[in-house]
Amino acid sequence: MIGKFIVIEGLEGAGKSSAIAVCQQVLNDAEISFVNTREPGGTPLAESLRNLVKATHEEKVSDVTELLLMYAARSQLVENVITPALTKGEWVLGDRHDLSSQAYQGGGREIEKHKLDALGNIVLGDLKPDLTLYLDIDPKIGLARAANRGELDRIELEQLSFFERTREVYLAAAKSDSSIITIDASQPMDKVHSDIKNALKQFIAGETA
Amino acid sequence: MIGKFIVIEGLEGAGKSSAIAVCQQVLNDAEISFVNTREPGGTPLAESLRNLVKATHEEKVSDVTELLLMYAARSQLVENVITPALTKGEWVLGDRHDLSSQAYQGGGREIEKHKLDALGNIVLGDLKPDLTLYLDIDPKIGLARAANRGELDRIELEQLSFFERTREVYLAAAKSDSSIITIDASQPMDKVHSDIKNALKQFIAGETA
Repeated sequence: MIGKFIVIEGLEGAGKSSAIAVCQQVLNDAEISFVNTREPGGTPLAESLRNLVKATHEEKVSDVTELLLMYAARSQLVENVITPALTKGEWVLGDRHDLSSQAYQGGGREIEKHKLDALGNIVLGDLKPDLTLYLDIDPKIGLARAANRGELDRIELEQLSFFERTREVYLAAAKSDSSIITIDASQPMDKVHSDIKNALKQFIAGETA
Repeated sequence: MIGKFIVIEGLEGAGKSSAIAVCQQVLNDAEISFVNTREPGGTPLAESLRNLVKATHEEKVSDVTELLLMYAARSQLVENVITPALTKGEWVLGDRHDLSSQAYQGGGREIEKHKLDALGNIVLGDLKPDLTLYLDIDPKIGLARAANRGELDRIELEQLSFFERTREVYLAAAKSDSSIITIDASQPMDKVHSDIKNALKQFIAGETA
């Protein structure tokens, strides 16, 4: 594989959308050909799964069902979009990837790590992002921002403690994995964006040196 | 758990629907309270997944995606229907269960056994049918019957060799697991039905003795 896999991660209201726009600009300026993905979703079938998993259902959605739907969508995206792009030498810019499942389903839902590891093994094998930009925000602030944007989905309606557990997994992952860069998303937007730009430019410089 | 879990398994055209009707009659005659399930499906969300997995899509459905959707549907059914019923002491009569995934995805799609074992472990834990009636039919005969009934779904459109591999897993499972009874579904229908009746009555007699 020649292409590089860049992922943007973070809680609701951390500013992922504008971070992605910043990354697109940096990649375009560097004349790097890339495809955009989002998870869950990114293919027609995976988008159907996204709608199912985010919708509120009359029946309780079991935590394991939610987990399996996330990985089913991921499997479809990896096989049909991410791997073919990387193989062709294109870069991939992902709005969320596996770390989201580790954080939300593993942290938020408290699903045992060995179950996530087993699914990661089945679906991803050796695939791993080359760079993850994690936008860190206190969930109290992030959720207030997200609520201001409009209706919250099934997962976004969880209690604050859910998002606190989710954030803990993100922070622990960033601490132990040098490919995950933490961006302080509570800073003024200009500073957040320049931090993102710098981190991505530095990565590109390292890769194309 | 007090209730018993009875599952009907078999290839397309093996006669599962009429076998289920026969079992319902036997259970009713024995005044056993039971719920019917089918897989994939059996809850509103699981039925949505059934539709997605059986539909023909413009994109290729990856084998792993298919596998995960089967287990997502199963997880939802087990947690919301099967386990609650068994816990209340009701019996469950299932149109397919985990052995179908082992046969179709493990045999037909040739997905490695350790992946199915990992998913079975995540979704089912210790849950296992108390009795499985496997309707054995040569896929050449079964598929001809199924084709006569109307349009075939995405999985039913597979090559004959796919169903031959599927049948091999069913036969091997029946050989090694005494809770799986093989019914020769190539016999005249009357004989098939009396074999089913006898097997189920014998099981009930053993359980209620």
